Amino acid sequence: MKKLWGSRFEKSTSKLADQFSFSISYDKRLAKYDVLGSMAHAAMLGKRGIIDKKDAAKIVSGLKTIGAKIEKGTFRFDAKAEDIHTNIQTELKKLIGPAADKLHTARSRNDQIALDVKMYCLAELTEILDLTVGLQKSVLKFAEKNVDVIIPAYTHLQAAQVVVLAHHMLAYVEMLERDKGRLMDSFMRTDAMPLGSCALSGTSLPTDRNFVAKQLGFLQVTRNSIDSVSDRDFLVETLSALAMMGMHFSRMAEDFIIWSTSEFNFINIDWSLCTGSSIMPHKKNPDILELVRGETGTLYNNLNRVLVLVKGLPLTYNRDLQLDKPPLFESVDKVKLILQLLTNLFETLKVKRDILTKRIQDESFFTVDLMEYLIKKGVSYRDAHDTIGKMVKDCLDKGQKISGLSKQELKKYSEKFEMDALKLLNAETSVRIKKSFGSTSPELVKEQIKGWKKALGA
Amino acid sequence: MKKLWGSRFEKSTSKLADQFSFSISYDKRLAKYDVLGSMAHAAMLGKRGIIDKKDAAKIVSGLKTIGAKIEKGTFRFDAKAEDIHTNIQTELKKLIGPAADKLHTARSRNDQIALDVKMYCLAELTEILDLTVGLQKSVLKFAEKNVDVIIPAYTHLQAAQVVVLAHHMLAYVEMLERDKGRLMDSFMRTDAMPLGSCALSGTSLPTDRNFVAKQLGFLQVTRNSIDSVSDRDFLVETLSALAMMGMHFSRMAEDFIIWSTSEFNFINIDWSLCTGSSIMPHKKNPDILELVRGETGTLYNNLNRVLVLVKGLPLTYNRDLQLDKPPLFESVDKVKLILQLLTNLFETLKVKRDILTKRIQDESFFTVDLMEYLIKKGVSYRDAHDTIGKMVKDCLDKGQKISGLSKQELKKYSEKFEMDALKLLNAETSVRIKKSFGSTSPELVKEQIKGWKKALGA
Amino acid sequence: MKKLWGSRFEKSTSKLADQFSFSISYDKRLAKYDVLGSMAHAAMLGKRGIIDKKDAAKIVSGLKTIGAKIEKGTFRFDAKAEDIHTNIQTELKKLIGPAADKLHTARSRNDQIALDVKMYCLAELTEILDLTVGLQKSVLKFAEKNVDVIIPAYTHLQAAQVVVLAHHMLAYVEMLERDKGRLMDSFMRTDAMPLGSCALSGTSLPTDRNFVAKQLGFLQVTRNSIDSVSDRDFLVETLSALAMMGMHFSRMAEDFIIWSTSEFNFINIDWSLCTGSSIMPHKKNPDILELVRGETGTLYNNLNRVLVLVKGLPLTYNRDLQLDKPPLFESVDKVKLILQLLTNLFETLKVKRDILTKRIQDESFFTVDLMEYLIKKGVSYRDAHDTIGKMVKDCLDKGQKISGLSKQELKKYSEKFEMDALKLLNAETSVRIKKSFGSTSPELVKEQIKGWKKALGA
Amino acid sequence: MKKLWGSRFEKSTSKLADQFSFSISYDKRLAKYDVLGSMAHAAMLGKRGIIDKKDAAKIVSGLKTIGAKIEKGTFRFDAKAEDIHTNIQTELKKLIGPAADKLHTARSRNDQIALDVKMYCLAELTEILDLTVGLQKSVLKFAEKNVDVIIPAYTHLQAAQVVVLAHHMLAYVEMLERDKGRLMDSFMRTDAMPLGSCALSGTSLPTDRNFVAKQLGFLQVTRNSIDSVSDRDFLVETLSALAMMGMHFSRMAEDFIIWSTSEFNFINIDWSLCTGSSIMPHKKNPDILELVRGETGTLYNNLNRVLVLVKGLPLTYNRDLQLDKPPLFESVDKVKLILQLLTNLFETLKVKRDILTKRIQDESFFTVDLMEYLIKKGVSYRDAHDTIGKMVKDCLDKGQKISGLSKQELKKYSEKFEMDALKLLNAETSVRIKKSFGSTSPELVKEQIKGWKKALGA
Repeated sequence: MKKLWGSRFEKSTSKLADQFSFSISYDKRLAKYDVLGSMAHAAMLGKRGIIDKKDAAKIVSGLKTIGAKIEKGTFRFDAKAEDIHTNIQTELKKLIGPAADKLHTARSRNDQIALDVKMYCLAELTEILDLTVGLQKSVLKFAEKNVDVIIPAYTHLQAAQVVVLAHHMLAYVEMLERDKGRLMDSFMRTDAMPLGSCALSGTSLPTDRNFVAKQLGFLQVTRNSIDSVSDRDFLVETLSALAMMGMHFSRMAEDFIIWSTSEFNFINIDWSLCTGSSIMPHKKNPDILELVRGETGTLYNNLNRVLVLVKGLPLTYNRDLQLDKPPLFESVDKVKLILQLLTNLFETLKVKRDILTKRIQDESFFTVDLMEYLIKKGVSYRDAHDTIGKMVKDCLDKGQKISGLSKQELKKYSEKFEMDALKLLNAETSVRIKKSFGSTSPELVKEQIKGWKKALGA
Repeated sequence: MKKLWGSRFEKSTSKLADQFSFSISYDKRLAKYDVLGSMAHAAMLGKRGIIDKKDAAKIVSGLKTIGAKIEKGTFRFDAKAEDIHTNIQTELKKLIGPAADKLHTARSRNDQIALDVKMYCLAELTEILDLTVGLQKSVLKFAEKNVDVIIPAYTHLQAAQVVVLAHHMLAYVEMLERDKGRLMDSFMRTDAMPLGSCALSGTSLPTDRNFVAKQLGFLQVTRNSIDSVSDRDFLVETLSALAMMGMHFSRMAEDFIIWSTSEFNFINIDWSLCTGSSIMPHKKNPDILELVRGETGTLYNNLNRVLVLVKGLPLTYNRDLQLDKPPLFESVDKVKLILQLLTNLFETLKVKRDILTKRIQDESFFTVDLMEYLIKKGVSYRDAHDTIGKMVKDCLDKGQKISGLSKQELKKYSEKFEMDALKLLNAETSVRIKKSFGSTSPELVKEQIKGWKKALGA
Repeated sequence: MKKLWGSRFEKSTSKLADQFSFSISYDKRLAKYDVLGSMAHAAMLGKRGIIDKKDAAKIVSGLKTIGAKIEKGTFRFDAKAEDIHTNIQTELKKLIGPAADKLHTARSRNDQIALDVKMYCLAELTEILDLTVGLQKSVLKFAEKNVDVIIPAYTHLQAAQVVVLAHHMLAYVEMLERDKGRLMDSFMRTDAMPLGSCALSGTSLPTDRNFVAKQLGFLQVTRNSIDSVSDRDFLVETLSALAMMGMHFSRMAEDFIIWSTSEFNFINIDWSLCTGSSIMPHKKNPDILELVRGETGTLYNNLNRVLVLVKGLPLTYNRDLQLDKPPLFESVDKVKLILQLLTNLFETLKVKRDILTKRIQDESFFTVDLMEYLIKKGVSYRDAHDTIGKMVKDCLDKGQKISGLSKQELKKYSEKFEMDALKLLNAETSVRIKKSFGSTSPELVKEQIKGWKKALGA
Repeated sequence: MKKLWGSRFEKSTSKLADQFSFSISYDKRLAKYDVLGSMAHAAMLGKRGIIDKKDAAKIVSGLKTIGAKIEKGTFRFDAKAEDIHTNIQTELKKLIGPAADKLHTARSRNDQIALDVKMYCLAELTEILDLTVGLQKSVLKFAEKNVDVIIPAYTHLQAAQVVVLAHHMLAYVEMLERDKGRLMDSFMRTDAMPLGSCALSGTSLPTDRNFVAKQLGFLQVTRNSIDSVSDRDFLVETLSALAMMGMHFSRMAEDFIIWSTSEFNFINIDWSLCTGSSIMPHKKNPDILELVRGETGTLYNNLNRVLVLVKGLPLTYNRDLQLDKPPLFESVDKVKLILQLLTNLFETLKVKRDILTKRIQDESFFTVDLMEYLIKKGVSYRDAHDTIGKMVKDCLDKGQKISGLSKQELKKYSEKFEMDALKLLNAETSVRIKKSFGSTSPELVKEQIKGWKKALGA
């Protein structure tokens, strides 16, 4: 296939060089945006009289045909094309003849690829935002369905206090909400149209970049042609937002992997998201969650990969930048899949209420409540902490339950103790007495659920 | 020093364990915020009657004393304190006696450290934003001072076209502007007050978290106590914004390192930012810029370090999270230094006009202009590219200048050529005829400078 | 403090530049090696008559004095010295006068720092190797002490089969053995003496590099002066070996964190390696292990940091390379601490035998044994898997134990079943019948322990 | 396609789960090794009487058929197969019927995949070693061809001294030699056969793992079944060795990118490794080298990706580990391509001797030689440095050449100066007078070339 740049070259690139440098195997994913961008560009060239109006119309119509083929999946991607631009350009020439030679006026591949990737990012960011809302709704529904369930909560993976399951779930919703914020911010900063920056310095032809921007639905036009062809911030920022989503996914996955061990045994993950063992017939493994956790490394390193790529590159365009796309595509694909799989997870997840009911009887969950009991009676935090610490230690040493302490025994620890303190030693009370904003109080949690449902239109 | 949690422990931690786990050596940097947070917290406890008003007043006053010492640098940080919270708590007790024991009511170190780090981030983000504006102004000033200078611009580090130096400089301003956007976004998402989440579940004590938030100047209060003690997004997001700044710094540094070689020789970096060689007396090395480039690895990996840290941690707090601070502090410190050094760089940078004037005579810079000459006369881009390609090749082969071609020779390449085409073969014309928005046209660049000056208040 | 290179400079570096570029705050750790290297160098200069023998002797004696001070901790590191070389050079001049000016002959700081860091690496690698052997011995001792303990083993964190605890422990020993291999390989490749490469091209002075190498105990001399001052492989390779150790540490830590939850509850970590909660008096948290896991991010990113640092640096020395030291020092320090802490862990770790005894009764651990029972009787793996799968499912559905099946019921699943199959349903049998090399058979495991003890001299 | 583990499952995995978890799209690359491993395994099962000898023979023969198809490229990889094991198992059953059901005896996919990947690594490491030797030879040939060429050498990218081009080239050979060492070390540690570890605990069947190892050409058998299925060290270590190669490649690429600018202009990169511009007809860009530099990010992050993947995974196998393969394959592929491309580069690279001859006349290259002139006459390094520094400064200020100084002027700087000092001011002398081992002395460099040729069999 004829290259776009060979006019003064004495020798063509070697086969190996082509294999190493051709991007068509991955940038073909941008075909749709490349066509749309070229259509807007051609329309502008015609409108501004830079090329003949008839030629412009031919080009637009030819591109429409190509676009339709791409949509239908019948467009022939040519492994011998250097990149998607060349592939489409060549196809266009076959379709409409010499008029096609006028398309690449007042632009270069430097600004063209920036445009294509930006359009891709804007589209995918929108989709990921939608899927994230979907996951939030699914978490919310699961939370509501189990709104009366109380679970142990952990710090240091050591049983700490009891909380309303829904409260734990809403922590995920918060995490995802911040993710959405970052995706949105990245969207806003991506939304500036770079085409028309040409190789780097702009053009002497009377272009109208605002027209192109409007055609393509961009909010703004980039202000500096050198920056336009050098900048990959939008891509890095998107990868950063996705990496942080991966961080969140990995924490959710870890929670559920632990909860689904026989030892914790809080939940039942649906068969549709588990696999078995080729050697141990009894196994039911949370593979999907393990893979979600595992893909964190992928999402982190796709970010880091582009950061390293761009490090120390002098302005303006350098060929290294071509390698920004495979990590972008991979991260976008993975995140979209994971969002859907986690949505499925919450839709099908079952809580083992019986086991949880038993588990939350453990009195050590309520030591803070006992401590606050004393604080309410004027004991200082420090003394209350010491008192309860001693009481816990004694009971553990003697193998005795706190709830089995007599009034006299209680008083030995603190004069402030009355027998009503022992009423605190159950999970329902523990969550119910919480009062602070953001706490695990069932009442407050229900209000939060209501608020989220409204906010998400769920 | 007494630990805050030892009440039921049978044995103290080993020396080695202390050495490995104590954070006082670095979290002492949070002292100021720890004190401010505790003051607001104590005031709230008093106001809500959770502790005695007099005790609250004593605590606040004691903390004020400690805060003043910290400010003056006379506070004794104790390497034997586990962390800054313990250090200050112990000091407070020495100062005001038993009342101090009431301070740690209705909070835990989990939410306390979240508060401290958030306050630190908000303060530092503000400062970094200011320094970034400072750098932008300095770039702008440099651009304005050299507004008539034309330089070669490069793609693939191969000389490509000429541009106005100021145009290249404004690309940096654009990069920094996006950086500011990200810093600001991170600020906004950080601005939610976590204190009062306690260990993880909130408290049964009648706290007023909004009061604390208002006291400390937070815009919002976090909504979910589990999320509040688990979340490190604000920190990762800040590190991501700083890593991207590092990416930009490294590109600027690379530009200037290359421009200051004897071979390029465009600029003179001030002696104050260079060093010499212990062995080669003639050397003047752009060390500061090399170190700026080198610190990119630091900024990238501090981001990645916290991402890896948080990967796969189950909710809620895990001790791993303690390790988020050294990378944060390091990145903040480095970026602040670099911003100031780059500001100095632009303030003192000299352009070697004579050398540049000679350099931009190279006719190959103007091939695009010749191509657009033909396009304006109706030649298709494709044919124009081929024509100029052939002309360039012939001239190179014959060692001839394009400007030396006769009318006849010109016509051989294209009938559309007239002798006026050769008038395009100089740098001033090349930049002047650019028309597109964002291009290197001196007129447009000057307008951009004006716009930026207004926007930045410069 | 006078810099080593200022002779032609018109202006000194700015304060900020000094703050940013001085390395004395961290490279002072190399003081000892800098002195030793200089002593060998001076001795060589004297021996070869490059400088006066008396001057050489003076220098060596002065350096000896300085070295002694460093050893005793009385040497004054000067924050105003650019780097450790300058600091020592200046001190030497104070001590011995003008003769000191001859020391920096036939070398530059480029090869000097390479030497210092290599000597540091060689010393630290040796120490880390020793500590690793120490940890292996400690694991081995723990394994031996609990050689009769059987534990559940997990795939996908789902209970899979039972194994001998010692078998699991020996997996750690294997991991550490590979680590030692990598440390050793890195040692071997580091063991080539770079001094005398000077700035980059060598020297016209009649040096004897082999003499210096022998004095300092190096096995080889580097062969290429350009490579000698540019190369940081030894450092990156060491960081890579340490990162992989971190990977192993994090897996051990995770095992023990999980095993020490109330839900798994297999082990008791010594109080000396745990901490409590400032708010929940009942907590005993495995903080040290969490921090070990957390430092993985540190070890990974110190490797990556230097990789990024060196990326794309043209030969030869660039100032960026100075930044290789802080990550190296941090990783070395962390790994040494962790090795000791893990050694302590194994020395003090208690196994909860009662709980484990109960836990391993779970029949699902033995499904593979049942499967192999059938295979031994000629059933194909595929059929055996299906048969046991069905049996497990039925028993789970009916809430019945496999060991409670009657002969008739057994036969329903496979004609090959006899009642002796049910004898397989216990942990002791399960491990005992394993035969394959490397398996969990107690006999084979004991042999392995014996082998390791001999190999490690334990 | 029937899964290997579904016997007790109530529901099959969802389509989305399959899409996310199936590895066939990439692990099909292991097909060859999977077949070889299974052939050895089946032979062993037959030999040991674990399965019927006839069945074993059938299996081996069936696998041979499959292996042949794979070799010829006619084997049908089935996207609906979960993984390559399942794909081949299913195909085998179609071919030979029920006997196929006996193959998966005494192993699991956990040890099977470990075997496959190890065999892949061993084969690829061998190939990469060969290609690296090829590149070294190519560098050597280029060095020899240009053995009389002198070039400027740089520190801080500032012209420093002159060196023999071959000397610079041999620095690359040294780098590659260390790379080979690391590849070899990784090979040695990979060379232990894991099959027969089964899921994790070994087997009660009377296997012979040594037989399998011998069949497959392994040197050793792994000693611990738990470690065998958990360990990914070999893979990480290989990725680390490749990442360090990437570090080296990026430095070579940077050297050549800089040398091929119009400003440096030392070399001519062959057209076959360059591309042009779609907009600037005069451009000839070193794209391949830019992409080589860019792939550094890929190689670094594939290492880091697997490190992150394995972080904190409890023993033994976790599904996350499946994701180790795509980064491995990508790094191996990239490195092999780059090695070949760089070999081509050196084979076709042209040096611009005329330009270099002019460039190395710059007197500042010889300041160290002047300094050593004085040192040889007894002047201290310090004084010599100051003297030459002053002389350089004066000459620069006055725009005078050092070689133009009169005897009187020389003496002003130092009494030791005689007019013969000025004879040092040329490149040939500068390299010739170097004496130290490893220096740029042409004589020594030629000896080195001879040594390398012998060592590499070139």
